[in-house]
This record gives sequence, structure tokens and C-alpha cells, in this order.
Amino acid sequence: MIQVGDRIYLVLEDGKKYRLQVKKDGSFGTHLGQVDFNQCIGREFGEWILTSQGRKGYLLQPGVVENIFHMRRRTQIVYPKDLGFILLMLDVKEGDRVIDVGVGSGAMLGALARLVGDKGRVYGYDRREEFISLATQNLIEWGIQDRVELKCRDAQAGFLETEIDALFLDVPQPWDCLLAVWNALRGGGRLAIVSPTTGQVTQVLEGLARLPFIEIEVWESLFRKYKTNPRAFRPEDRMVAHTTFMIFARKVLS
Amino acid sequence: MIQVGDRIYLVLEDGKKYRLQVKKDGSFGTHLGQVDFNQCIGREFGEWILTSQGRKGYLLQPGVVENIFHMRRRTQIVYPKDLGFILLMLDVKEGDRVIDVGVGSGAMLGALARLVGDKGRVYGYDRREEFISLATQNLIEWGIQDRVELKCRDAQAGFLETEIDALFLDVPQPWDCLLAVWNALRGGGRLAIVSPTTGQVTQVLEGLARLPFIEIEVWESLFRKYKTNPRAFRPEDRMVAHTTFMIFARKVLS
Amino acid sequence: MIQVGDRIYLVLEDGKKYRLQVKKDGSFGTHLGQVDFNQCIGREFGEWILTSQGRKGYLLQPGVVENIFHMRRRTQIVYPKDLGFILLMLDVKEGDRVIDVGVGSGAMLGALARLVGDKGRVYGYDRREEFISLATQNLIEWGIQDRVELKCRDAQAGFLETEIDALFLDVPQPWDCLLAVWNALRGGGRLAIVSPTTGQVTQVLEGLARLPFIEIEVWESLFRKYKTNPRAFRPEDRMVAHTTFMIFARKVLS
Amino acid sequence: MIQVGDRIYLVLEDGKKYRLQVKKDGSFGTHLGQVDFNQCIGREFGEWILTSQGRKGYLLQPGVVENIFHMRRRTQIVYPKDLGFILLMLDVKEGDRVIDVGVGSGAMLGALARLVGDKGRVYGYDRREEFISLATQNLIEWGIQDRVELKCRDAQAGFLETEIDALFLDVPQPWDCLLAVWNALRGGGRLAIVSPTTGQVTQVLEGLARLPFIEIEVWESLFRKYKTNPRAFRPEDRMVAHTTFMIFARKVLS
Repeated sequence: MIQVGDRIYLVLEDGKKYRLQVKKDGSFGTHLGQVDFNQCIGREFGEWILTSQGRKGYLLQPGVVENIFHMRRRTQIVYPKDLGFILLMLDVKEGDRVIDVGVGSGAMLGALARLVGDKGRVYGYDRREEFISLATQNLIEWGIQDRVELKCRDAQAGFLETEIDALFLDVPQPWDCLLAVWNALRGGGRLAIVSPTTGQVTQVLEGLARLPFIEIEVWESLFRKYKTNPRAFRPEDRMVAHTTFMIFARKVLS
Repeated sequence: MIQVGDRIYLVLEDGKKYRLQVKKDGSFGTHLGQVDFNQCIGREFGEWILTSQGRKGYLLQPGVVENIFHMRRRTQIVYPKDLGFILLMLDVKEGDRVIDVGVGSGAMLGALARLVGDKGRVYGYDRREEFISLATQNLIEWGIQDRVELKCRDAQAGFLETEIDALFLDVPQPWDCLLAVWNALRGGGRLAIVSPTTGQVTQVLEGLARLPFIEIEVWESLFRKYKTNPRAFRPEDRMVAHTTFMIFARKVLS
Repeated sequence: MIQVGDRIYLVLEDGKKYRLQVKKDGSFGTHLGQVDFNQCIGREFGEWILTSQGRKGYLLQPGVVENIFHMRRRTQIVYPKDLGFILLMLDVKEGDRVIDVGVGSGAMLGALARLVGDKGRVYGYDRREEFISLATQNLIEWGIQDRVELKCRDAQAGFLETEIDALFLDVPQPWDCLLAVWNALRGGGRLAIVSPTTGQVTQVLEGLARLPFIEIEVWESLFRKYKTNPRAFRPEDRMVAHTTFMIFARKVLS
Repeated sequence: MIQVGDRIYLVLEDGKKYRLQVKKDGSFGTHLGQVDFNQCIGREFGEWILTSQGRKGYLLQPGVVENIFHMRRRTQIVYPKDLGFILLMLDVKEGDRVIDVGVGSGAMLGALARLVGDKGRVYGYDRREEFISLATQNLIEWGIQDRVELKCRDAQAGFLETEIDALFLDVPQPWDCLLAVWNALRGGGRLAIVSPTTGQVTQVLEGLARLPFIEIEVWESLFRKYKTNPRAFRPEDRMVAHTTFMIFARKVLS
């Protein structure tokens, strides 16, 4: 049952979406009319309310994808198309201790924190104070800040943790951190790096080759959305062509 | 520390991989020589042993991706490229109650069971007894059978659960199950369907349009692997062109 | 040497492009200032002039790609990414007699007319008078109208030619024309059909299966453009996801 | 009417294909039985003959695509998926004078020679005598050797022609030839370069930036083939993931 303070994901009948916080006696203006929050309180997710113009608005619970796309952000985010694959390749699971370097707005922190459970731990590193602060805000909003420790610190200087299960690296010059990464990971620990340009990937590959890493793979993903009219089923006209290359490796002992 | 009975993921120095169970006094033959299991016992993951031909073999822990690709299977599996995205779109998390229809060899069951945690529950449906049995074996091997209930039952006949958070449907004629799916889901609950042909997708879209489902999306993914030689960075010559279309929807109340 | 009446392809120093006709004492306004046509007259292609704001504008000769993208058009065009492949698969060459059905704005007519040479012939069919007229204008502008015969006629009613080497079909319901197409083609003659939706392709495939056609193939193309900064070589952020499916077949005798 | 000496493209009823030369009293063995050439003589293209096992074999005329894929070759060829686009971007047409550098087995020479007509000219450069010889054989077989001049010469040493309309460069280190290329092209002349690795493209882009070239573009193409069963229309399982990057530019005067 929706209560005051809950986050809701409002989907209007024309498909337009909003992620909102329900406030007592409050309202929210849309192009299809005002949404009266008092009408939402006490409803179950999945129900709908009417706007002031008599248009339907469905009340849904936001999930991780909706949270990421509607969060406060000031950085490029890891897209869902890449995020799901990275989480799988990092094999993040209950009880894992993982590091996220270059936390940005905190999307990856949120996804990792959800996966490690109450017994796991996520360590977030960023050298920019503003992003530590922004990520903290977003984690609080998602209610999973307890599993995360944030540190305003340059990854190149080394990590404070060892025996880490998985590490995600999203910085402009990842090759500078590879020795620190190797030191932080446990034997067999998994590494994922995102870099948008081919030159960056080349430098990362050179760096990985100099250290005991195996199972090195580079991937990119192309996701194509389709129009959902069954009488004219076909791909959308345009798509995202590139977000990032994804580089994976596992630490071994030399 | 590796012990008798453990599953290991052996990566030879030429990149060839094997998922093995360590047996006391046992051995395993590879094209680069015999691996003596007694040599593996007591090692840490990430270390290496030598084969009888003096070639290195790294001892890694298998994760979800390695488990899926090396499991006993008699069905087409959901590829990692699609699996990560589906899990994200289904928003599966600790405590969720989810249904997997058409369990096949059990790969999706395993992935879901890991995500729902000890308080969650996965209900698996398949009308073919042989797959219930195969999936059970694989779940036992992965050690997560306690979170899963398997039922040899036709989904079209309806599900025994209600208020389900997320449902994954992998059957040849998914349109026949859509009413049963709608009944099983909670308000706002999430549905993912995989179908390989455009005709199947068209029929699913027609079926979804007749029921209160919103946020209907159809996606396909293309993942391209790159050669990892930094001096000749380029995509591999060939790739998987198609596995399945992924259809997503959320239940609302009419 | 550029003369009055010539078509030029003006490329400004910021990459913005215009296809223009040089007029005596005329000028053309751009966001980087006026281009004085008298300055262009007598120049060689490849040279540059200065705009009224002192910015460089390169004077190039428009080619088939530039002509197509800058022509008067009121229809969806066949994109270069598909056009080159279709022309190759149709094996159009000097002396060929080819048919273009659904001429639209005339882009394909222009491409075909260039390939068949002075001894070849292109027959264009469209049942909409306005497109016969528009295509005629464009052909005159490109100076290749002599090789083309246009007919305002429904393809379903049959073609007036036989022993045709290659036929291109771009109409909403191509399956209605397949018998007429078979009758028009010579033995071994080549057919290409473009259709944007999967349902259309399915119907075309059903129609082709009922007639003596072999070498049936269906293709789609995805072209990805890259950013040309050598220090950050990577694909563009967005791309065309879909234009059309391309269906090919060759006529045989039963 | 098929005659002794003609090249035919034989398509068996199971889709297997052969490019053959018809020889008097000769025969050709296939997995579906012997094909008796005397049976083929006097037939029209599009007709079929029976093999010794009573299976149908269709008699088609080979076109440019069939010629390329079935020619004698000892090099990587430019695939049709890229070839059609390159020919379009190079804007090759009747009367053009074009250069092909790195002729390899001669596929591009053949495609270019067809397009330039009797009044055009194709100049082929390769520093390896064996490829000059192989390309010559293939051109003779296709009957278009009169339009082509082959030179066993290193492109880096400069071209013997000037005022060239279009130039195609397929060598391992294209950046070494760019000044020679610029000198050979006419103002506005078009250049296409193929290179498989990202590092090569980066070096080409650096080289192009140092010379008066504009309209620089880099593309790659992904072509996906579909299964042609109308009841299960879907992409093939696997596809070519990468052949080459295609780099385009036009010469201007500085």
C-alpha cells in the first residue's frame, strides 16, 4: 500500500514516466494534468489514478532500472544494456566484498549493494568530493547506504582493502590503477573496466598483459529496441550505437 | 582453500577451460597433459598447478557464467548477453518471490535463486518430467536447491502462486499462458518472455494488448567480442547473430 | 572548371554541406556568411572560396550519394548503406534492362540509370502521378533521363517488358506483384525487394515460395559511423537502427 | 543460350552452389550426382538439368558477387557487404579513371572495371608479382582485362597517374601512401581505405589530418542474414562480426 514518503513510478496513459516521492497534500503537474498525491495514498501498486484532466496514471514501484535513469546525476552512467552483463561477469553475490572505483552518481554502487546482501560490503572510491556527496545522497534515497563505504581517495594510491571478490573500474586512465587493483583482489577475483575509446582499451590491454591476469575479454553490446505494434513489428528507427567497451579479467598468482 | 568435492574452473595456459569436481587421488586428462587432483587440494584459488606435461593450469572458482556454460544441459540456454539484462529488467532482489516457466536445464532458476536470497523463493514450472529432474540435479550441484520449488505442471493450467514479483516465461507458445501470468503477478509485477522468431513475438504482443499490461518493450542484444592483442585491437571475425527476442511488460489493474 | 548552371557541393570549414546550382551574379546565405557565386565560376573542383565572413567553403562535385540526400523528395529513400548492396546483388551492369517499381523520388532510378550505360534501359513504374513527375524532375537535373522510361501504372497489372535482367520492388504490398515480376524477368533474372516490417517479409517469403524463385535471401544492414578524432577513436553515440529488410531472389523456369 | 566455354553458376536443389566452365563432353561430380555438361549446352539460363542421381540443378549466369566468391584467390577479399558501399562512396561511374592499390586477387579491380565502362580506366598497383599475375588471370576470365593496367610497383614510391577520380587503398600501412595518394587524385577526388584494426585506422586518421583532405568518415558494416522460412522468420544464429573499417576522404587544394 502506497504511503507518504514512498517513491512511486508514475506511468501516464501515453507512456510518459515520472519517478516521484509521495507528499501529503502535495501534487505534481504533468502535460496530461495534475496528479493529486492524496489520491495515491492507500492505493496498491499496479492501480491507477486520474489526473485533473481525467487521464489515467498508473502507480508502479520503481526498480533498479527506473532508479538509475531517474536519479540525480552529473556523470555518464553505465547503461542497463551493459550493467546487467557486467554484474554477471563480475559474479557478484551475497556476502561478496566488492570495490567500485569512480563512483560518479552512484548507480553502480546501488546495483552492487543490492547484490551483496546484508553480509556483503561495497567500497566506493572517487577522488572528487562532489561525487562522494552525490552518490551518498542517492544511496540514502534508495535505502542501501548501510552496505556501502565511500572514500574520497585516488585509486592509483592503492586500496585500503584486500581479498576483494570483484572490482569495477570506471576512470579515464584505468591503466594507472592496475597494480593497485591486482593487490586488492583475491586470487581468482574478477575485474571489470569500462572505457569508451579504442585507444583506452589498447592501453588497458597492454597494462593487463604486464600483470598476472587471465581470462581477459573485451566486449561491446548493441541493444536494439523494437516497435511493439504487432501489425508492423520492426526495429525502432534509431538506437544507441556505442556507450563503452567492457574489459574483463581475473587475477591469478604468478 | 580447495578441498575434495569442490568444483573448480581450470584454465590452461592456452586458454582452454574445464569445470571439474576435485576427487581424492583422481586425475583429469587434457590435451596439455594430466591434471593430478591431489596437487590441487590445499591450494588457494588463483594459484596454478603443472600438468604432467609441465604446462600451467590456473585454479579458479566457477561463477554463475561458468556454471551455466558447463552444466549438464539438453536445452537451448539463455545466454549471458541476454541473461544479465533480463535479470535487471525483472528487478529481481532479496526477498522476491519469482516464477520461472519452462525451466529447461535450470540455468535461469540458478540465476534467480541466487538473487532472491534466503528469504525469497523461486517457483519453477515445466511440463516435461525430464527437465524437472535435470534442473534439480543442477540446482543441487550449485547448492541452491533450498530456495527453489519445482512443479511438473503445464503453465497454461494456471500457477499455484499469486502476488508474484517477477515471472520469466520461456515456452514455445507463450501467448497461451498470458492470462495465467497476469493472475499470478502482483500489481506492478514484472514479466519477461523470450521467443526466437518474429512470428512468436507478434503473437505475444497481440496477447499482451488484450490484458492490462503496460511498459511493453521488445529488445534484442548483439554482443561483439574483441581480440585482445593490444597491437591489433579489433572485433573477432564472427559472432552470435541472434539468440532470442526479449519481451518485457508490467501488470496493472484494469 | 565550374561554370554557370553547374551543381556544386559546398562544404564549409565546419563540415556543414549544401548542394547548390551556380547562378550568375547570385549568392547563397549560410550560417557562416554569404557565398558569392561569381567567386565560384572558373574555379576547379577541390578549390575553396571565402564567405562574406571570411570562412572557407570547399567546392566539390556532387556524386550519387550527395545527389540522393539533397534531392527534392517526398518519400523514404533507400539509404546508401542498403543501396550499394542492392545494386551489387542485382548485378546491374552496362547494357542491362531493369525495372524499378515504386519509383518514389527517383533515387533508385538514378542509381540504376548510371549503371546500365547508354545501351541499357531503366523502366520505372509508379501508380502515383505525383511521383512520376517528381522523379522526372530529379532525373532531368541529374542529366540521365534519356535512359529511363517512366510509366504511371500499377505493377500488379503486369509489366509491359519481358526478359528483364533485374527488378527492384519497393511497394507496400510486394506479394501482390510477384507473378507479374516472375513474368517480366528473364531466366536467372534477379529480384530485390525492400520491406520495413517483419510481417511484410513473411508475406513476401510465402509468395516467393509459391513461384519458381531460388537463391532466396533476406538481409539487413547496420552501419556504424566512427568519430574521426585519432586520439579518441570510437563509434558515434547513436546510429540508424533500421531502414528496411532486403529480400533477394532469382527467377528459374519450373 | 549456354555454349561450350561459358561460365555457369550451378545451384543444386539443396542450395549448394558451384561456378563452372562448360566443357564439351565433360562432366562435374557433386554430392548429388554427376552433371553432364552436354546436357547444359543449348539450354537457356534459368533452366535446370538432372544430375545422374535425378536431382535438379539450376543453370544460372554468374554475376559479380558469384565471381568474387568463387574466384581463385590467395588473399582476404573485400566482402559484398562492404564492396557495394565503397563503390557508392567512391562514386565510380562511366569514364572515370581510378586506381586500386593492393590488388590482391583482383576482386576490386573487377568491380571497378565494370563501372568505368569502355572510356574509363582502372590502374592496379601491387608490389607483389604473384598478385599481379593472379589478378591478371581473374580479369581475363571475367573478360574485362582491357580496361585495366596492372603495375608491379610500391605505392609509396608514387603513382604514375594524376587527376584520378577515385582511389582504393588496401595495404597494411596505408598511412605511408597518403601523400602519393593526394598527388594522384584530382581536386575533389575520392579516397577509400580499408583497414581491419583500430590502431591502423588511428594512424590513417592522423595521416589524413596532416594533408588537405576533407569529408573524412569512418564506417563499419554489420550485415545480418535471416532464415527464410516464413513460419519462423528470424535472423541466422551466427554472422560475420567484422571484416574491416572503411575510411573515406576527398582531396581538396590547400
